[in-house]
Amino acid sequence: MVPLLVRGPAWLFQWRAACTLGAFVQQRTWAGASRIPGLGGPLVQRGSSSASSRAPEVVLTQERYPVRRLPFAQVSEDDLAALERIVPGRVITDPEELEAPNVDWLRTVRGSSKVLLRPRTSQEVAHILRYCHERNLAVSPQGGNTGMVGGSVPVFDEIILSTTLMNQVMSFHDVSGVLVCQAGCILEELGRYVEERGFLMPLDLGAKGSCHIGGNVATNAGGLRFLRYGSLRGTVLGLEVVLADGTILNCLTSLRKDNTGYDLKQLFIGSEGTLGVITAVSILCPPKPSAVNVAFLGCPGFAEVLQTFSTCRQKLGEILSAFEFMDAECMKLVELHLRLASPVRESPFYVLIETSGSGAGHDAEKLSAFLEQVLGSGLVTDGTLATDQRRIKMLWALRERITEALSRDGYVYKYDLSLPVERLYDLVLDLRTRLGPRAKHVVGYGHLGDGNLHLNVTAEAFNASLLGALEPYVYEWTARQRGSVSAEHGLGFKKRDVLCYSKPPEALQLMQQLKALLDPKGILNPYKTLPTRA
Amino acid sequence: MVPLLVRGPAWLFQWRAACTLGAFVQQRTWAGASRIPGLGGPLVQRGSSSASSRAPEVVLTQERYPVRRLPFAQVSEDDLAALERIVPGRVITDPEELEAPNVDWLRTVRGSSKVLLRPRTSQEVAHILRYCHERNLAVSPQGGNTGMVGGSVPVFDEIILSTTLMNQVMSFHDVSGVLVCQAGCILEELGRYVEERGFLMPLDLGAKGSCHIGGNVATNAGGLRFLRYGSLRGTVLGLEVVLADGTILNCLTSLRKDNTGYDLKQLFIGSEGTLGVITAVSILCPPKPSAVNVAFLGCPGFAEVLQTFSTCRQKLGEILSAFEFMDAECMKLVELHLRLASPVRESPFYVLIETSGSGAGHDAEKLSAFLEQVLGSGLVTDGTLATDQRRIKMLWALRERITEALSRDGYVYKYDLSLPVERLYDLVLDLRTRLGPRAKHVVGYGHLGDGNLHLNVTAEAFNASLLGALEPYVYEWTARQRGSVSAEHGLGFKKRDVLCYSKPPEALQLMQQLKALLDPKGILNPYKTLPTRA
Repeated sequence: MVPLLVRGPAWLFQWRAACTLGAFVQQRTWAGASRIPGLGGPLVQRGSSSASSRAPEVVLTQERYPVRRLPFAQVSEDDLAALERIVPGRVITDPEELEAPNVDWLRTVRGSSKVLLRPRTSQEVAHILRYCHERNLAVSPQGGNTGMVGGSVPVFDEIILSTTLMNQVMSFHDVSGVLVCQAGCILEELGRYVEERGFLMPLDLGAKGSCHIGGNVATNAGGLRFLRYGSLRGTVLGLEVVLADGTILNCLTSLRKDNTGYDLKQLFIGSEGTLGVITAVSILCPPKPSAVNVAFLGCPGFAEVLQTFSTCRQKLGEILSAFEFMDAECMKLVELHLRLASPVRESPFYVLIETSGSGAGHDAEKLSAFLEQVLGSGLVTDGTLATDQRRIKMLWALRERITEALSRDGYVYKYDLSLPVERLYDLVLDLRTRLGPRAKHVVGYGHLGDGNLHLNVTAEAFNASLLGALEPYVYEWTARQRGSVSAEHGLGFKKRDVLCYSKPPEALQLMQQLKALLDPKGILNPYKTLPTRA
Repeated sequence: MVPLLVRGPAWLFQWRAACTLGAFVQQRTWAGASRIPGLGGPLVQRGSSSASSRAPEVVLTQERYPVRRLPFAQVSEDDLAALERIVPGRVITDPEELEAPNVDWLRTVRGSSKVLLRPRTSQEVAHILRYCHERNLAVSPQGGNTGMVGGSVPVFDEIILSTTLMNQVMSFHDVSGVLVCQAGCILEELGRYVEERGFLMPLDLGAKGSCHIGGNVATNAGGLRFLRYGSLRGTVLGLEVVLADGTILNCLTSLRKDNTGYDLKQLFIGSEGTLGVITAVSILCPPKPSAVNVAFLGCPGFAEVLQTFSTCRQKLGEILSAFEFMDAECMKLVELHLRLASPVRESPFYVLIETSGSGAGHDAEKLSAFLEQVLGSGLVTDGTLATDQRRIKMLWALRERITEALSRDGYVYKYDLSLPVERLYDLVLDLRTRLGPRAKHVVGYGHLGDGNLHLNVTAEAFNASLLGALEPYVYEWTARQRGSVSAEHGLGFKKRDVLCYSKPPEALQLMQQLKALLDPKGILNPYKTLPTRA
């Protein structure tokens, strides 16, 4: 493949790798792979190919980790009968059906729940929680089960409360773009729904084919459109939440502005189901941009990636909607495990830039000026551009499916860090030296525009000594940079005890107080988010 | 003045009213008027002209409203001595100096505090609150005292805790645009500071010359850039807060993303000083746009205003940064009280549209296409365009200074409502009929792009029977539209008992519980935000 040289307007560069990329279309996408009709969203093992049925069984969380069951009641026959009266025909106790929702899709943690409930309405959720609260039964809320930190599966025998059947759009206002829907709606389906009406979901992520909007909000998911449309804390306008005791808290407003007292919904955004169960969401969708372009570029070094980012912000301004990067190791894994081919010449780093605007001609001119500058100055050595939806999707797949490629590479140690952009890649280089051949791969990729690094280390299997070499090293390194040890994935079960690297003791104490206020018996998603008590 | 007809590109229309608008530059702006060096920000009466020294004295809140003092301690000589040790030389007890900070700038409420403190550091604030907490002394935090709902002045004899001297910028990162500063920095000064470095404050409001950033965050201020840069809930990255018992809660992170546990800072954004005192703010500033245009247009009716808005969103897309409207009554008051002149022919409605983009040529083309369409179709009957900063400021002044013009018209009954845009103006018309000659003026203006109406009624003086005709009528009307009875001003003292029109009882209960958790003695800004207990 020849490098892109500026001959005429750079924005006229055509997709030059249609053949080698043919594999994309035959390949089931990660997102697609996780949705098999009839099985129900959350029951499918994400990222699993047909080979996964032969995958080694995941060790029980309670055996791998030093965690003790709290004194909750155990589900009795009487309980099952009572729950059956609340959600008739939707109390699942078949061990085979319970296999998948007990295991996270990364296959790193495993609970031993014996009951899964599938409510359809907020009232049913309220009845369930009121009952569980009275009986002191622990509950693990579950959306699409696509979480990265073991937050969406039980640790012991918590009752799984699935939002799978809560999948109705309640309203859409085609002037304001406000969507109101139940928590179990799948992100990709909502995306299709609003796009048909001229709007866009303000968030997008690799797991869109499985993840539920309620889970997205509970995790405060970031994802691929964060750079442009910002945090869910701004775009979520209202929530309906069922509290631990079964109280329905209706803050499901659709107003852009509402300063009538404390913004209670914020408590539940990012609380990972530990303070309440989100049952419905009101969210502001931006108008669908009429022109979208995606450039996929190769950079000779990380310094050039950073300079490309600065140039990009300057030249593309308000039409820049994503700036993602991945290193050469990521590309190797995507090629190896997913049989995708790079559309550009082999490079130490790759950058994916998306523009979204309202004037195709203007956007193309801006992009052209940008590409001329980065190619001319050697910041970028090769690149390709896509303007039609099929090719745009193909380019995005290279970035979005890294998670899937990693999960096929073996056991994955995942770190999701916020760091100053200028230090973002140093940790990856540092770890390669530190770990040597003990690691199969050490890769770095992520949302550079948001200062968010996804650092992943793979090994053949879980290995306590490798974990010891990684932790607390990675967290200490991050804390020295005043970074965050969880940028967007949350804390769940696996990161709850590293909270102290990013938050002061006073904050931890207030978190515990809020938990005690909202869930005094601690039945909601126990063993998650809040640190183990001494 | 002749109507704007399309002759050549509409974006070339020049400012056509330079002479009539000359009055602008001689006129001290509302923002400017409120800052008199040496007196200290919060001590000055906002919106007061030289005439205000002869203005009638404002009735004490405790005399006008049915409110009872809670059993807090009273400040003793021993307390004064102890406070003097904490903030030496900055304990103000001179009755004359205490006059202004006891009265809100609208001159509608008045406290009787006998002590004002001026800490310089968070540690001093912590010492003050620890002392007050132990002694059961109530505290009223005060920033620029520009609030609209009586939230920033004491109701009885609460100690006033002023952030005036906490006015230091702590850091600015000129790649990420993250500003970290003390709570008492004045918004306009921060704006200048970041603009010199190529960035923009993500919020702007008429009171910018006096208001403090800490107060903006405590109120969750919306303002003029909300349409483009969104809520402070997204742009505020971190806060330092001193809790009621003097604990310093340091969540002053500068990270774009941080999902390590509950987002505690959200509790304090919009809590109006009732849960903690904000002492420092970390805020993300967007890059300063290289091209800004402002169009000021006349519309023949409200239906045309709405259609102009739809056309605008479609044609201007991502460069639209403000869409404000005002009615003919507003223009009359601005002309009458501030001697400003309308730059366009008299119209029933006026619209101010701002674009902010990175390519002057592209933006001008988009604006031209938009103006051609709205002028050609009769949605707009007259208009003027400004591209240089001086003229842009003049046009903005017409909209920003309405509040000031109203305050000079007499006693103002203010309502700040979120409503469905299509019903936004109906309430104004309805009230004109309902009130008849009892009201001096009934005007409507506001942030149409955010569905936010500022409805104002003026009368010669406060009049209980006029208030009775307005309330609860306005709130009931709003509740029927599922609107918000406070879009951006907050609840403060004057709106706290109308919360129930926009929030369900479960939300009120949770608010009370949060207050009890964070401020068990209730010393922080008592009589504000939370409804009177039965």
